[in-house]
Amino acid sequence: MQLKNPLLLYRGEEFNANFYYQTGVDIDHSFFLLDGKTKILLTPKMNYEFAKKTFKGKVIIYSNPIKEIIELIKSKSLCLDFSSLSASLFIKLQENFKLENVSEELLKERMVKRADEVAKTKKAVHATKEILNSIDFSKHKIELDIKKFLLKETLEQGFEQAFNPIVATDKNSSFPHYTPANVKLGSIILIDYGVKYEKYCADLTRCFFLGNGKKTKEAKANYEKLQEILHDLVDNLSNFKDGTGLAKASESLFEKYKFPKLIHSIGHGVGLDVHEFPRLSEKFNDNLTNSILAIEPAVYFKGKYGLRFEETIYFDGKKAKIL
Amino acid sequence: MQLKNPLLLYRGEEFNANFYYQTGVDIDHSFFLLDGKTKILLTPKMNYEFAKKTFKGKVIIYSNPIKEIIELIKSKSLCLDFSSLSASLFIKLQENFKLENVSEELLKERMVKRADEVAKTKKAVHATKEILNSIDFSKHKIELDIKKFLLKETLEQGFEQAFNPIVATDKNSSFPHYTPANVKLGSIILIDYGVKYEKYCADLTRCFFLGNGKKTKEAKANYEKLQEILHDLVDNLSNFKDGTGLAKASESLFEKYKFPKLIHSIGHGVGLDVHEFPRLSEKFNDNLTNSILAIEPAVYFKGKYGLRFEETIYFDGKKAKIL
Repeated sequence: MQLKNPLLLYRGEEFNANFYYQTGVDIDHSFFLLDGKTKILLTPKMNYEFAKKTFKGKVIIYSNPIKEIIELIKSKSLCLDFSSLSASLFIKLQENFKLENVSEELLKERMVKRADEVAKTKKAVHATKEILNSIDFSKHKIELDIKKFLLKETLEQGFEQAFNPIVATDKNSSFPHYTPANVKLGSIILIDYGVKYEKYCADLTRCFFLGNGKKTKEAKANYEKLQEILHDLVDNLSNFKDGTGLAKASESLFEKYKFPKLIHSIGHGVGLDVHEFPRLSEKFNDNLTNSILAIEPAVYFKGKYGLRFEETIYFDGKKAKIL
Repeated sequence: MQLKNPLLLYRGEEFNANFYYQTGVDIDHSFFLLDGKTKILLTPKMNYEFAKKTFKGKVIIYSNPIKEIIELIKSKSLCLDFSSLSASLFIKLQENFKLENVSEELLKERMVKRADEVAKTKKAVHATKEILNSIDFSKHKIELDIKKFLLKETLEQGFEQAFNPIVATDKNSSFPHYTPANVKLGSIILIDYGVKYEKYCADLTRCFFLGNGKKTKEAKANYEKLQEILHDLVDNLSNFKDGTGLAKASESLFEKYKFPKLIHSIGHGVGLDVHEFPRLSEKFNDNLTNSILAIEPAVYFKGKYGLRFEETIYFDGKKAKIL
């Protein structure tokens, strides 16, 4: 990353993808300072030895971090990630520096995936597909049973969950971000899930049909159309200049298939975060070359059922490939 | 919560304890506005139906949230949680309101636990103890095996993990916040873990000794001393006026036992977050009455080993009880 001014990132209680991407380590309550080519990690005393062992750069123990950061930085300006920076820290730093928001730059750097990042994501996607394919619906009674199965299989195979699985049956599948509960499985089951491999996420959605009634048949036909939409978008990805192009193409396809306008975006970038750049929206024009995307055409019929089909794909600039 | 001005909270991609505490729901990318007695949830279109079903108050779909919030709020001042609010949102809101930070007030409200919160935590603590007691060390070879066992048992018994388990053997146990790896189990194993029940966390640490060599015997004796320190603190909790009193008493005990000064605090509040108020530090004087605390005396010998003993306790104002 080439910046005119020093960059300061903070990883508090939770994982911070920009911090990990820039430092290569995931150490809680730590500040990362990148000043020219100098890399410094400021960490509390209890993390010092572990940081020294794992971080490639200088490690300093802090006791009063803001004061010590102010002393350390010679520049009058400071680059920060305003999206992950708390208002409290912002206010304290603002008293001493001219603050510049480089959130977009950080996300745009991560948006272009290296070969090793693609390989890690691919491994996560394959593991997720295997787990989804191994569900034996005759063994599960309620939504929560399937959630448990997915998470246990994830651990069994040495992965971590990328996010909390959505398992939604019948009416519940019409809520895009539903939370699984003690609800008996019906004839339609939507599962949105992904595992993480070496911190890289997969994101997939599949629908399963257990019955064969009129509603289920109609749902199956709609699910097939969603798959057609996805494959159409993937096959033509090189024709869309950017995220805006992809979003517009998706909208046309939804019209063509006479589906209601999608109530969420057609997809998003995937990487260290499940949702990251590029943004697939008419508001932005993020480049798609060398990005990893989750594409997720969906249809929601209020009070009836919802369907979503989602694949994680990689676009090398010429061809998009389902991972 | 009694505030002079409207309160605005935001729950983005991740769980936000203050948002959940105030709203009773956990819905992503949503704003909560508390204006007098009026409760409004602003949520993206895709979460509207689910929010309407679960949130007790008015639900509004947003498309341009900041603009809509500005129109909705008549007051010139706005209360916010600066710790969880991003700098980006802070900057946008600052243009339209006088912003007041109520982080401390929100955390101090959560610090006083209701009976149902104590009961949920108790259930989480008991489940964690059962899981820790059921480890059969003859069946595990490396640190990661035990991590997997803990997480699988958590799911098996219908709980969620409160945080990523620390499993550290021999030298690795001298890093307080170590990340388990492919490392063969030695004679000392430190495990720091807790499950979550209905969003309430447990936090416990135990050390296990497999060998019987000189170093292990010494470690066992030190571990017993840590247990004595913990029980001394718990038995005398009603004598300490506040977090400062507890921190000072712990420091005296460490001197008495000739242990090096602790490199982290003697403990912390536990609840919807694993680390929350009250703060047990000489810098603050948080009240301890009706709080749930993790108390964790520890000793770290660089390059040799580390030991920590941690219990989650409840203090009713008169007596502290290990949960």
